[in-house]
Amino acid sequence: MSDVKLLSTPVPPGGTIGILGGGQLGRMLAMAAARLGLKVHIYSDVADAPAFQVCDIHTVAPYEDDAALKKFTATCDAVTYEFENVPSKAASVLATIKPTNPNAKALAVAQDRFDEKSFVTSLGLKTAPFVAVNSPEDAVAAFAKIGGPAVLKTRRLGYDGKGQAKVKSADECKAAFASFKSVPSILEGFVAFGFEASIVAVRGADGQFAAYDPAENIHENHILARSIVPARLTAKQVDDTKTIAKKIAGALDYVGVLGVELFVQKDGTLLVNEIAPRVHNSGHWTIEACIVSQFENHIRAIAGWPLGSTERHSDAMMENLIGEQAADFKALAAKGGGLHLYGKSEIRAGRKMGHITYLKPRSN
Amino acid sequence: MSDVKLLSTPVPPGGTIGILGGGQLGRMLAMAAARLGLKVHIYSDVADAPAFQVCDIHTVAPYEDDAALKKFTATCDAVTYEFENVPSKAASVLATIKPTNPNAKALAVAQDRFDEKSFVTSLGLKTAPFVAVNSPEDAVAAFAKIGGPAVLKTRRLGYDGKGQAKVKSADECKAAFASFKSVPSILEGFVAFGFEASIVAVRGADGQFAAYDPAENIHENHILARSIVPARLTAKQVDDTKTIAKKIAGALDYVGVLGVELFVQKDGTLLVNEIAPRVHNSGHWTIEACIVSQFENHIRAIAGWPLGSTERHSDAMMENLIGEQAADFKALAAKGGGLHLYGKSEIRAGRKMGHITYLKPRSN
Repeated sequence: MSDVKLLSTPVPPGGTIGILGGGQLGRMLAMAAARLGLKVHIYSDVADAPAFQVCDIHTVAPYEDDAALKKFTATCDAVTYEFENVPSKAASVLATIKPTNPNAKALAVAQDRFDEKSFVTSLGLKTAPFVAVNSPEDAVAAFAKIGGPAVLKTRRLGYDGKGQAKVKSADECKAAFASFKSVPSILEGFVAFGFEASIVAVRGADGQFAAYDPAENIHENHILARSIVPARLTAKQVDDTKTIAKKIAGALDYVGVLGVELFVQKDGTLLVNEIAPRVHNSGHWTIEACIVSQFENHIRAIAGWPLGSTERHSDAMMENLIGEQAADFKALAAKGGGLHLYGKSEIRAGRKMGHITYLKPRSN
Repeated sequence: MSDVKLLSTPVPPGGTIGILGGGQLGRMLAMAAARLGLKVHIYSDVADAPAFQVCDIHTVAPYEDDAALKKFTATCDAVTYEFENVPSKAASVLATIKPTNPNAKALAVAQDRFDEKSFVTSLGLKTAPFVAVNSPEDAVAAFAKIGGPAVLKTRRLGYDGKGQAKVKSADECKAAFASFKSVPSILEGFVAFGFEASIVAVRGADGQFAAYDPAENIHENHILARSIVPARLTAKQVDDTKTIAKKIAGALDYVGVLGVELFVQKDGTLLVNEIAPRVHNSGHWTIEACIVSQFENHIRAIAGWPLGSTERHSDAMMENLIGEQAADFKALAAKGGGLHLYGKSEIRAGRKMGHITYLKPRSN
C-alpha cells in the first residue's frame, strides 16, 4: 500500500471524501470539503453525530465492524479521520482499499505517548524528560530518575487531562500507576514553562509543506480555553516552530494537517509536548483569519489537491465555548465575532459546544 | 400573517431552517446555517440539487405541490428562499404556517420589473425612465415617449439577459414585444452609465439594518463576471448606496439579505436597476473578506438572531467561474484565492459552476 501513489490523481469535484468520526472536527472538515465541490461520507459510531447534518451520506456503525468499514470505503475516493484514536485495525482495513491519510505510522506514533516522545527525540527535537513505566518497580525507578514533581500518564488514549496524575514521590507514582490499572504508562518530568504554543501545519500528497502562524494557547481545567495569534514568540521562534512541524511531517511521510503542541520555556526553549495527526482545536482561528482554513487544507492534502495559502490576514483570538458557555446563543451572536456552534443535541459540562473567533487588523 | 410577530422568538441552535431552492445560493445558505448550529431542510424540484449534499433533510417536489410544501414547512422553524421567482402561491402556503422571509411584498415587487421600478421611484429614488408595454400600440407609444435606444424587457422571470431586447425604433420595439409573445413588458430608457455597482444589505426581524460595502460589478455576456470591493465610489456615494438599500428594506418591512443593483452614471448619479430579495452573487466576497458573510447574515435575520458584523477587513475581488472556466480545478486551487465549487454534476456553457475570491490588505 502506498498512499502517495494512490493519490497521484487528485479526487475531482463530485468525488467523495470519507471521514471517520462525526464530531465537530468531522463537521468542519465536511463543510470545507463542500466548498471545493467534494461530497462527504461520514462514518460514526454515534447515531446523531453532528457531522451527519452537513454531509451527503452517513453511516452509523462501530469502528470494529469490518464489513461496514469496507462498504463505507467503497463509496469514497479518499479517506481521513477526525481523531487520532482510530483503532489501528480499522485504519488498516481502510488503507488497503482507498488512499487513507494521515498514514498508519502517524496514527501509531500519536496513539502512544512513549513512542511519540521517542520519535520526537530521534529527530533531534526536545521534549520533557520521560521514562516508560510498565510495572510498580518501573514506577519507583522512573521517579528516582526523573525526580519530582512529575506527571504519570497512560501511554494510550489520554486527552483533555484524562489518564494523568501529578506525582511528588515514588510512592505517589506507584499509587498512580495502580490507579491506572497498571496499563503501560510514561513518567514525564514536570516542565516549568512560560506558556503553551502550538503550530498547525499541512503537508501535501506531493510533499509540499505549509504552516500557519503558531498560536499561544490558554488551558482551563485541562481543556483549551483560548488560542491567540500571534503568540508571544520572536521571529526566530516562529520559524523554529515551523521547522519542528516540517521535520515531524517529513519523517512521518505525512499527508494532511497536523498540530504540534509545544511548551515554551522561560528561557525560550521549545519543547514538543504532543503531536495531533489531524486538524487541531488551536487552528480553528484559521477559518476567519486565513483565506484557506486548516480544514480545507487538510481536505486539499488528503484529496491530492494543491495546498491553499496559510497566510494570515488578521490577528485572531479563538475562544472555546464549553458546556453552559454556549447556552446564551443570542448574546454570543451579538458579540461581533465569528460564531460556530457544533450542532450537538445537548449541552453537557466540559463538552465542546462551539467556539468564537475575534479578528483585529494584523499587528505583525 | 405577521412575520415579525412569528419571529419574536429566535430559532434556537438545533432548530431547522427551510430553504426553497437547492442551487449554489441554497447550498451556501445551508453551510452558513450549519455554522450556527442550525439544521437545514432543502426543498427543490430538481432531483440532484447541489444543496442536498450539505443539508440535514431534503425534499424533491414541484413548487406547485401544496401537500409537499405543507409537509416540508411542518419540519421547519423558519423558511426562506434562494431565488425571487418563488411562485407566489407557494410563498403564501408557507407563510401561513411558519415565519417566511423575505415577505410576500418583497417577492411581489421583485418579480415584476414595472412594479419594482414604480416602487423604487415612489420612495424618491432614481431609476432609468420606464413605461409599461401591454400591447403593440403601447410598444409604439412607449418608444415615442422614452426614445431610442431603449431596452424592452418582460415584466416577469427575466435573468442574466434573458427576456431582454435592445430596440432602436418603434418598429423594433413592436417586433420585440411580439417576440416575447406579447407578455406584459416594460420599456426602459437606455442609460449611459459609467459602471455598475451593487449594495448587499441585511435587515433583522427587529428592524436592525446593516450593509456591506458596495461592490463594482463587471458583466460579460449578461452574466456577472467579477465583483470588486471597494468600488470606485466616493465616501458620499458609498453612504448613498447604503441609504438606498435602507430605504428599500424599510419600505418593504424586509427581513433578510437583499441586493440592490445600481447604475453609476458618469456624473455620479446612482440609479436603481434591480432589487434582489435574496443573497446576491455580488456579495459572495463577504465569505472571505468579512467575519460574517451575507449568507450567515441572511440566516441570522430570517431566524430572528442578532445580525453579525458587515465590516470588511480586506479588499476583495470575486470572479465567477462560468462553464468551462471551472474545468481545471487543480489550476484554480493553486491560484491563491478562496475557491468555491458548487457541486453541480455537469459543466454546461453559461452555468455558474463556482467562484474564487482574492483578498488584499484593506486600502480604505
